[in-house]
Amino acid sequence: MVRFGVLGAGRIGKVHAHSLADSGRASVAYVADAMPEAARALADGVGAKVASVEEVIAARDVDAILIATPTDTHADLIEQAARAGKAILCEKPVSLSVERIEKCLPVVEQAGVPLMIGFHRRYDPNYSVLEKRIRNGEIGDVEIVTIACRDPSAPPVSYIERSGGLYRDMMIHDFDMARFLLGEEPVVVHALGGNLVDPAIGKAGDIDTAAVHMQTASGKIAVITNSRRATYGHDQRIEVHGSKGLLRAGNVHLTTVEKADESGWTEDKIPFSFIERYEQAYRIEINAFLTFLEKGEKPTASGYDGLMAQKLAEAATESLKTGQAVKVK
Amino acid sequence: MVRFGVLGAGRIGKVHAHSLADSGRASVAYVADAMPEAARALADGVGAKVASVEEVIAARDVDAILIATPTDTHADLIEQAARAGKAILCEKPVSLSVERIEKCLPVVEQAGVPLMIGFHRRYDPNYSVLEKRIRNGEIGDVEIVTIACRDPSAPPVSYIERSGGLYRDMMIHDFDMARFLLGEEPVVVHALGGNLVDPAIGKAGDIDTAAVHMQTASGKIAVITNSRRATYGHDQRIEVHGSKGLLRAGNVHLTTVEKADESGWTEDKIPFSFIERYEQAYRIEINAFLTFLEKGEKPTASGYDGLMAQKLAEAATESLKTGQAVKVK
Amino acid sequence: MVRFGVLGAGRIGKVHAHSLADSGRASVAYVADAMPEAARALADGVGAKVASVEEVIAARDVDAILIATPTDTHADLIEQAARAGKAILCEKPVSLSVERIEKCLPVVEQAGVPLMIGFHRRYDPNYSVLEKRIRNGEIGDVEIVTIACRDPSAPPVSYIERSGGLYRDMMIHDFDMARFLLGEEPVVVHALGGNLVDPAIGKAGDIDTAAVHMQTASGKIAVITNSRRATYGHDQRIEVHGSKGLLRAGNVHLTTVEKADESGWTEDKIPFSFIERYEQAYRIEINAFLTFLEKGEKPTASGYDGLMAQKLAEAATESLKTGQAVKVK
Amino acid sequence: MVRFGVLGAGRIGKVHAHSLADSGRASVAYVADAMPEAARALADGVGAKVASVEEVIAARDVDAILIATPTDTHADLIEQAARAGKAILCEKPVSLSVERIEKCLPVVEQAGVPLMIGFHRRYDPNYSVLEKRIRNGEIGDVEIVTIACRDPSAPPVSYIERSGGLYRDMMIHDFDMARFLLGEEPVVVHALGGNLVDPAIGKAGDIDTAAVHMQTASGKIAVITNSRRATYGHDQRIEVHGSKGLLRAGNVHLTTVEKADESGWTEDKIPFSFIERYEQAYRIEINAFLTFLEKGEKPTASGYDGLMAQKLAEAATESLKTGQAVKVK
Repeated sequence: MVRFGVLGAGRIGKVHAHSLADSGRASVAYVADAMPEAARALADGVGAKVASVEEVIAARDVDAILIATPTDTHADLIEQAARAGKAILCEKPVSLSVERIEKCLPVVEQAGVPLMIGFHRRYDPNYSVLEKRIRNGEIGDVEIVTIACRDPSAPPVSYIERSGGLYRDMMIHDFDMARFLLGEEPVVVHALGGNLVDPAIGKAGDIDTAAVHMQTASGKIAVITNSRRATYGHDQRIEVHGSKGLLRAGNVHLTTVEKADESGWTEDKIPFSFIERYEQAYRIEINAFLTFLEKGEKPTASGYDGLMAQKLAEAATESLKTGQAVKVK
Repeated sequence: MVRFGVLGAGRIGKVHAHSLADSGRASVAYVADAMPEAARALADGVGAKVASVEEVIAARDVDAILIATPTDTHADLIEQAARAGKAILCEKPVSLSVERIEKCLPVVEQAGVPLMIGFHRRYDPNYSVLEKRIRNGEIGDVEIVTIACRDPSAPPVSYIERSGGLYRDMMIHDFDMARFLLGEEPVVVHALGGNLVDPAIGKAGDIDTAAVHMQTASGKIAVITNSRRATYGHDQRIEVHGSKGLLRAGNVHLTTVEKADESGWTEDKIPFSFIERYEQAYRIEINAFLTFLEKGEKPTASGYDGLMAQKLAEAATESLKTGQAVKVK
Repeated sequence: MVRFGVLGAGRIGKVHAHSLADSGRASVAYVADAMPEAARALADGVGAKVASVEEVIAARDVDAILIATPTDTHADLIEQAARAGKAILCEKPVSLSVERIEKCLPVVEQAGVPLMIGFHRRYDPNYSVLEKRIRNGEIGDVEIVTIACRDPSAPPVSYIERSGGLYRDMMIHDFDMARFLLGEEPVVVHALGGNLVDPAIGKAGDIDTAAVHMQTASGKIAVITNSRRATYGHDQRIEVHGSKGLLRAGNVHLTTVEKADESGWTEDKIPFSFIERYEQAYRIEINAFLTFLEKGEKPTASGYDGLMAQKLAEAATESLKTGQAVKVK
Repeated sequence: MVRFGVLGAGRIGKVHAHSLADSGRASVAYVADAMPEAARALADGVGAKVASVEEVIAARDVDAILIATPTDTHADLIEQAARAGKAILCEKPVSLSVERIEKCLPVVEQAGVPLMIGFHRRYDPNYSVLEKRIRNGEIGDVEIVTIACRDPSAPPVSYIERSGGLYRDMMIHDFDMARFLLGEEPVVVHALGGNLVDPAIGKAGDIDTAAVHMQTASGKIAVITNSRRATYGHDQRIEVHGSKGLLRAGNVHLTTVEKADESGWTEDKIPFSFIERYEQAYRIEINAFLTFLEKGEKPTASGYDGLMAQKLAEAATESLKTGQAVKVK
C-alpha cells in the first residue's frame, strides 16, 4: 500500500484522491489545500488527515505526492517533493514555461525519484488501444495524425487570463497525443488562431478557435484543431493515416441508444464534461502510476513528455504571434 | 433491340417503360391502359403508340409484354401473352390465389415463353451483394434470417380492400426475400397481426402491424415484421445470422451528411417513397430481364418463385385466422 | 450499511459480493457455498466469514440475503430467508417451474420482506435509458419490440441438461425485457426451435437456435431470436418500433477504434463474455437493490416479474412441443 | 437541345460526352482529339462527327464547347471558344498559372459567353446538401472546415512531372471546396508536404503527403490533408464546425452490407476510382451547365472560382518552398 499526500482538493484532486482510495493498492494519508474546507471535505471522504503542503511533503508516512494544485505551483512542488525523496504524480503541465521545466527536471533526476505527468488521455482505453495497434504495425508507417478537440464551452475569462493561452492550456493535450501517436518529435510548427467564440477572450489576449500543423524530420504530419465551443459536447476524435491503412478513435456516446423519426436517425449525445468523458482514463492513470511504483515500469508519460509538449505549445504560441512557422529544438 | 408492349401506365408501369426506353437494349412499341390519357402520356414519353391490351398482345412487332396492370388481371394476361408467344415480365403477384397461379404457370410452360416475376428487391445492389456473399460461404450456413419492413404510411382503405391483405400485398416481398436468402423452402408458418395504425384498416378486415416466423425442414428460421406506419421513412433492413458470422443490409440514407448538435448525432433521413428507395433496383431488374431474353440466363425470380411466395402469404393469412401454425406443402 | 449474507460463491456470486463490498453502502458479513474453498476465497476477498447456508440465513447480523446458488435451490432459499425476515436479492429464475414460483411468492408476501429478482439487463444503462425514453413518450405507443440475443458459444451439455431448456435458461432474459419494454403482458406465444449448432444439444433434448413471437391483448408484438453460437461475440440488440418513431440499443463495442483497409471499415469487437458486457449493469443492479432497501422504492424487477417471465418461457416450451400457439394466463 | 463540340476524348471527356448524350437536353455534334481513334470511338458512341479542334470551335452547328483536353491547352481553347461566341464548360484548372488565368478571364468576359469550371465535387449530392444546410444556418457561423482527401494510389511519375505539383493537381479540389463551404476567401496559407509514399515522386520534385491550413480575414479556418496513398480507397471526407453545431459528409460505401465476425464489424468498402465515386456528381454537373445555359442561372463554379482556387494552390506551393506562411491577395 503506497501512502499518498494529495496537494490540491479541487476537481481533479478529488477525482484522483478517490481513485487512490478505491484502488485497493494505495491510501491517502494527507490532503492539503489553500482552502481549508475543501481539504477537510476531501480528507474526510478518503479517510485522510488535513495538513499544510510543507507538512505533507515532509511527512514520514507519505511515500508519494500527488500534485493537483494550480499550475504555477507545480514546478516548485515537484522540486520540494523530489528533494524529500517522494515519488511524484503531477497534473499537466509541469510549468507554462519551458525554461522552468528545464530547470525542474534535473532536480527530479538528481533525487532519483519516480515522476509521472498526468496526461490522462494516454490512459483512455480507446486511445491506448489505438496506440498499441499502431505500434503493432496494423497500419504500417504513420503518415498523418489528425486530432479534433472541441470543448463544449469556454472557461471563465479569469481562468483564461492565467492559463498561458489556448495552446498551453487546451491544445497541450493534443500536442502530447500527437507525439504519442507519431512516435517522433515534430520539428516545425505553424499555428493559426482566431477569436470567434467570445470577444471577451480576445480582449484577454487569447484565441478560442485554433489550428496547428506540425511535421517531423522524416516528414510525418500532425494536424490539430481546437475550439472553445461545441454545442454537441466534449468532442474528441483522433485519426491516424498510415501506409497500410487508417485507424481512428471516435467519440464515446452516453449510450448506444439511437432514435429514428422525421428528423433522421439520431445517436445519443456525447459527454459534455471532460471528467465524465475521461472517468475511466483517470482511474487507469492512477493505477498505471501505482504499477510504475510497484514494478518500476517506465511511465507512459514522463517529465520529458511534459517538457516536449510544452515546447510545442510554446512554438505554437510564438507562431501565432509572428505568423510564421517555428522550428522546435 | 427487344420490342415491348407495356400493359398498365400507372406508377410502376411508367418506371419500367422509361427504364426500357433508356436501356439502349429495348424499345417500347405500345402502351395500353384502361385510362386512355394515362396511356397516351406514357406512350408519348417513350416514343410508343397507344393500343388496346388485345392489340398489344397480338402485335407482330412486339417481342415481350410487360404486365403492370391491377393484380386481378395478371394471371389472365400472362396466359394470353404466353399463348401469343411473347416473353413476359409480370409485376408481382401472379395472382392473390395460389390455385390460380398453379393453373397459370403450366400455360406458360407449355408455350415455352420466358417469364420473370417483378420481385424488384432481389435486384437491389445491397441485397444482391448480401445474397452473393452468403452463397460464397462468408457466414457459413444460414441459420436465422431477420427482415424488418415498414412503410411510411398506409395505402388508402379502398386499395387495402382489394389487396388480399397485408401478408399478400406487403409481406409478399419479404416472403420472397426470406426464400431468396434461406436457400430453402419454409415448411411451417405462424403469423401474428394487429390493427394498431388505423381503425379503418381493421374495419376493412385487414391488419397493419404483423409478425411472421417460419422454419425450413432443416431447422433454419426466418422472422419478418411489418408495419404500415413508420414516421422515419421506408424502413428496409435485412440480417442473416450464420454459423460463421452475420451479414446485414441496412437502410440507404438520402446522403452521407450527419449533424451534431444539442440533440445528438443525426444521420440523414431514409427515403419515404419505395420508388425512390428502389430506383436502382427497378432499373437493374429491367436489364436483368433483357439479359435473360438475350442470353437465356435463368431469371432471378421465376414463376415458381411467384408461386412459392404466394403460398407463404396464404399460409400466413390462414395462420392469422386460425391462430395456429400452418404447414406449407 | 446493510449487512449481507451471500449464498453461492460462483461466478455471479463473486461479481455481486464485490459490488456490495465496493458500494460503500453495504457489507458482506457471511459467504456460504457447497464448496468450502470457493466460500473461503470469496469471504477473504470481501472481508466476510464463512458459514453454512442455515447459519447465514439465521444470523442476527445479516439484514439481507443474496441468493446466487444453483437454480433448483432458489425457491427454497427464498422461503427460508423470507421466514427469517431478511430482505432478498435472488438471481433469476425463482424456479424453472411456474407452479413452484406461485407457491413461493405468497410466502414472501406474508413475511412482508423485500424481494428483488436479478434481471440484470434492466439495469444496463443502455436498456434503462431505452425504457425511460419509451415511457417518456418519445416514440408514442409501442407497437413492435424486436430482440436479438446470441451467445458466442453454447454451455457444456451437462449444464444444458439441467437448464430447463433454451427458453427457460437463455431466452428468459428476453422474455423479461419484452415485458419491460412492451409495458403489457403477452397473451399468446408461438415458438420455433432448431438444433443447428451442436448435435449433442439436440441429443440432450434441447434446441440451440430459436425464435419466439408473442402478442399482447391490445395487439402489440414482440419478436425474439436466440442462438447459442455467434462467432462475433455476445450479440445483444433491442429495437422498439412505435407510432411516432423507433428506438434501438445496439451492441457495446470494446473501444471506439475503427480501422480502414483493403477489407473495408471495421469497428472494434463486442465482448465475448456476458460478465464483461454487463459489468456496469451488475453494479447498478446491486445499488438499485440497496436503494430499494433504503428508500422503499419498488424494485425494477419484482417476484411477479420473475413469475411472468417464467410463464412465457413455459408457454414457449409447450409451443415448441406441440407446434401450436399457446395462450398465457 | 444545346449542340456541343467536345474537345478531348480521354477519360473525363468520355464521361461528359455520354452525360450530354443521355441528358435529353443536349446533343454532341463533334468530337476532337489529338488521337484520331479515340475521337472516332467516342464520336461513334454518342452519334457525333470527328473534326479538328479548330473546326469544332468554328462550327455553326455548335452552341457550346466542352474542354477536356490536357491542362496546358485550357486557357488557349477557352479564349478561342469565347471569341467564337460559344458557351464553355472547361475542366479544372483553367491554367496552372494564376497569371495566365488572369489574362484569360477578361477575354471571356468581353465576349460575354457563359463559362463554367468543372469542379465536379460541388455537384456531389452529399456536398451540395452539406453546403445548402450550412447556408440555411443549421450550424450557425462556419468556424472550422476540415477536409481529408486521399487517393488510393499515385498517378505515374510522368503525369506528376507535368501536373504542377500536388497542391495544383490534387488539392486544388479541396481548395475549391474550402472556399465553397467557408463562404469567405482565405487570406493566409501555410503548407506542409512530405515524400512518404514513393521516392520517385520526390525525385520528380513533388510531394505525396500534404497538409495545408488557411484562415480568412474574419478568422475562419480551413484544414486540408492529402495523401497519394490509401489502401482503403478514394477517401473523401468533409467536416464543418460551426457556432451552433457540426455537419459532416462521410465516405460513400459500395453497399450498406456489413459483416460481423471474429475480426469485428466491417462496413463495405468505399470506391477506389474517383470516376465511380463521383459518377452522380459528373452527371449533375452536366445538367447544371445545361440549366445555366437555358435559364441563365449563375453557375456554381465560375471562372472566378477557378482563379481563386489556383491562387490558393500557388500560395501553398510557395509556402512549401519557403517554409513560411503566404498571404493571398
